[in-house]
Amino acid sequence: MNQDISPIDLRHQIRAGDFTGNTSGYSKGYVQGNLCILPADWASEFLQFCQFNPKPCPLIGMASAPGEYHIRALGDDLDIRTDIPSYKVFENGELQEEVTDITNHWRDDLVSFVLGCSFSFEEALLADGLDIRNVSEGVNVPMYRTSINCASAGRFSSKMVVSMRPMVPADAIRAIQICTRFPAVHGAPIHFGDPDLIGIADINNPEFGDAVTIRENEVPVFWACGVTPQVAVEQAKPPFCITHSPGCMLVTDMPNSQLAVM
Amino acid sequence: MNQDISPIDLRHQIRAGDFTGNTSGYSKGYVQGNLCILPADWASEFLQFCQFNPKPCPLIGMASAPGEYHIRALGDDLDIRTDIPSYKVFENGELQEEVTDITNHWRDDLVSFVLGCSFSFEEALLADGLDIRNVSEGVNVPMYRTSINCASAGRFSSKMVVSMRPMVPADAIRAIQICTRFPAVHGAPIHFGDPDLIGIADINNPEFGDAVTIRENEVPVFWACGVTPQVAVEQAKPPFCITHSPGCMLVTDMPNSQLAVM
Repeated sequence: MNQDISPIDLRHQIRAGDFTGNTSGYSKGYVQGNLCILPADWASEFLQFCQFNPKPCPLIGMASAPGEYHIRALGDDLDIRTDIPSYKVFENGELQEEVTDITNHWRDDLVSFVLGCSFSFEEALLADGLDIRNVSEGVNVPMYRTSINCASAGRFSSKMVVSMRPMVPADAIRAIQICTRFPAVHGAPIHFGDPDLIGIADINNPEFGDAVTIRENEVPVFWACGVTPQVAVEQAKPPFCITHSPGCMLVTDMPNSQLAVM
Repeated sequence: MNQDISPIDLRHQIRAGDFTGNTSGYSKGYVQGNLCILPADWASEFLQFCQFNPKPCPLIGMASAPGEYHIRALGDDLDIRTDIPSYKVFENGELQEEVTDITNHWRDDLVSFVLGCSFSFEEALLADGLDIRNVSEGVNVPMYRTSINCASAGRFSSKMVVSMRPMVPADAIRAIQICTRFPAVHGAPIHFGDPDLIGIADINNPEFGDAVTIRENEVPVFWACGVTPQVAVEQAKPPFCITHSPGCMLVTDMPNSQLAVM
C-alpha cells in the first residue's frame, strides 16, 4: 500500500480488514496515538495518572463518555472498535488474545484514552536533518525501565520507562529545542548522558525494543516513553483492558503541526 | 548604592561620575549590554561579523549613524559617551587607557554597537530556581577559547569563546529550554559534556574569568560568549576602538522580558 495514504483512507482499509500491520511510516504528517481502553470504574484513576505524569502519558484524546467509540477531536469518521490494525485484550493483567476488531468485546462501560507517541516528534527531528538512530538502523527504539517514580494515582503506579536516541551534544541541544514545542508527544528529553543516574544498568540491553549503535562522541538522550502507562496498567491488573498492539497505532486526522505549542 | 536603582537613575549617577564600578546586580530585570565603538570604515565589517555570528555576537542596539551617541531603542536619556562606568580605549589593538568618560575621545566617525550579555539569561535561569555556579560561588563565569571557527567578515575573524556553567543533565535541559527563548543574549548552549570536543584542553583552567566547582553528576554546559567579538577586534587591530571595561556595562531601559521571543 502507498504509505502516503490519507489517515481516513488508511482507517477505512484497517476497518475493512485489509490492513493489519505496523502503521509506522504511513500517513506521514499526521498524529498517531497509543490506545488504552478501561472500564469506567478504573477510568478516572487512569485519567488522574495521565494528569500527574504528562511526560510519559500525554493524553491527546479521550472518549466523551463510557461506551462512546468515537473521538471527534481526533477524526470525524473514526471508530475505536475497528480502526486500529491490531488490539491486545487483557483480563486481570493477563493477555487473552490479539484481534483486529473489538466490536464483539465492546461494552457500555468502556472508556477510551489516546496518548501521543514518539512518531510525531521523530518526524519533526528528521525534518530538521537529525539522525534518529532507530530510524536509520531500521529497528524499534530502545526502551528502558528507570529508577524514576511516576506520581501514583489510585491503583496506578509505575517507574518511568524511557526511550533512548544517541546524538552528539549539538544535535541533542537542537532536539531539546524541537521537542519542547511538542509537549503532547512526550516533550523535551528528561535526561542525557550517564544512564546509571536514572537507574539504567546496561544501555546495550534495552528492556523493550532493540539496541542501537552509540557512536564515539555521542551521548544517549532519554525521553519519557508511552510504554510507561502500559506498565502501570499491567501492574494494576484491571479486570478488563484493551490496548493497541505495539506499532499498530490509531492514525488520526490531526496534523502533527497542531501539536506544536509554538 | 541601592541595587534596585532604576536604569535611568543609575545612568545619571554614572554620568555624574558617582558610580564607576561593576554593574552586575544593579537594576535587576533590565538588559545590560556590551559596548564596542569603531570608526565608520570598520563598522560595516563588524556589523557583518555580528550578522554572521549571532550566538557569540548578538547585536541588541546600534547607533543610527556615525557620530551618533544616543541609541533610542535602548533608552531615551542615554549617552554612550558618559553612561558606562568605565571604558577601555584602544589604538591599533593596544590598550591606551581606561577612563570613565569618552567625551574627549569622541569623533564624528565613531559607530557604537551594543551586544546582549549573559546577565539577562542568568537572571531567567536563577528565577527558575537553577543554580548558576559562578553566581553562587561569587566569581566571574569561566570562559574558554574553543576550536570552533566563527564565520569571518572582512578583517574580523576569531575562534568562538564560550562561557561554562556546570549543571546536572535535567537542569541543563531546562536551561536549554529557557535560553532558547533569548536568542538576543546568546540563546541556547552550543555544547555540553566533553570539553575536548570543542578544543578545551583543561576545564579547570579557563582563559578568562574564574574556575568554578563541577560537582559529581554534573556536566559542563557551554554558551557562546560576548568575549568573542572582543577577541575578533583585538586580532583585527583597528586604529581606534573603545569598549566597556569588563563587568562595567551599559544598563538599558529595556526589560529582559522584551528579549524573550516567546
